[in-house]
Amino acid sequence: MGVVEGRTWLEVLSPGECRTLLASRSVGRLAYMVQDHPEVLPVNYALDGHAIVFRTDSGTKLRAALTQPKVAFEVDDADGEKGVGWSVLVVGHAERVSDAEELRRLTTIGVRPMAYGEKGQWVRIQPGAVTGRRIVLGAGD
Amino acid sequence: MGVVEGRTWLEVLSPGECRTLLASRSVGRLAYMVQDHPEVLPVNYALDGHAIVFRTDSGTKLRAALTQPKVAFEVDDADGEKGVGWSVLVVGHAERVSDAEELRRLTTIGVRPMAYGEKGQWVRIQPGAVTGRRIVLGAGD
Repeated sequence: MGVVEGRTWLEVLSPGECRTLLASRSVGRLAYMVQDHPEVLPVNYALDGHAIVFRTDSGTKLRAALTQPKVAFEVDDADGEKGVGWSVLVVGHAERVSDAEELRRLTTIGVRPMAYGEKGQWVRIQPGAVTGRRIVLGAGD
Repeated sequence: MGVVEGRTWLEVLSPGECRTLLASRSVGRLAYMVQDHPEVLPVNYALDGHAIVFRTDSGTKLRAALTQPKVAFEVDDADGEKGVGWSVLVVGHAERVSDAEELRRLTTIGVRPMAYGEKGQWVRIQPGAVTGRRIVLGAGD
């Protein structure tokens, strides 16, 4: 059960609910800084314990994510017409996975890269903070 | 028609395609910096000319977005199972709309706030750069 924030009528989700919702999806959005602005791109991902893992090539996404102390990863299911939905935000450190045994194990957890190509690098986001909210429509809405 | 990037097999979308796709959705994700990390939240939005407009209350989203030179706004439709989809990224300056006539006009373009509550503030993102890509699956995938 969550706590309803009076100001925004959003239900704050528990850590357990956030984890269940993260496990329920396969596409999320990675946000990182590029020079003076954030960028956001969709990625296919899987949960590996509490960590988010995804594959990428050696382009912008990987370089940007790995050079920053913290990136954000967001998953949601939002219906604009009905005004309902939820979102979970993971903020954490992104690191390249290079250990051979780890890489073998990760290939078994079923992450399919979003774009066709080499996608040779695995990246893991170690979550520092996980927060989630569900929109709660009031009576008469 | 777009250009296919060899490295990632992503089709780079034209400005016209980006605009058509932006106009086709009503939920996007706003990314902004909070202290040392990016945050991402879903928002309901509409296009107002080339600008993205959405409503928010005076909480974190608004404060963070308005104090930064550039924020990001992303819209996508990505199918993780099929590995297909597209995403459009708008990077620009976010500004509060306070002119009374402008506010009256914006109430007619049909933006419904994502969360129930006051949502008294309108925010407009003036796009500085709009980029988009569509995933192109190769033969045999």
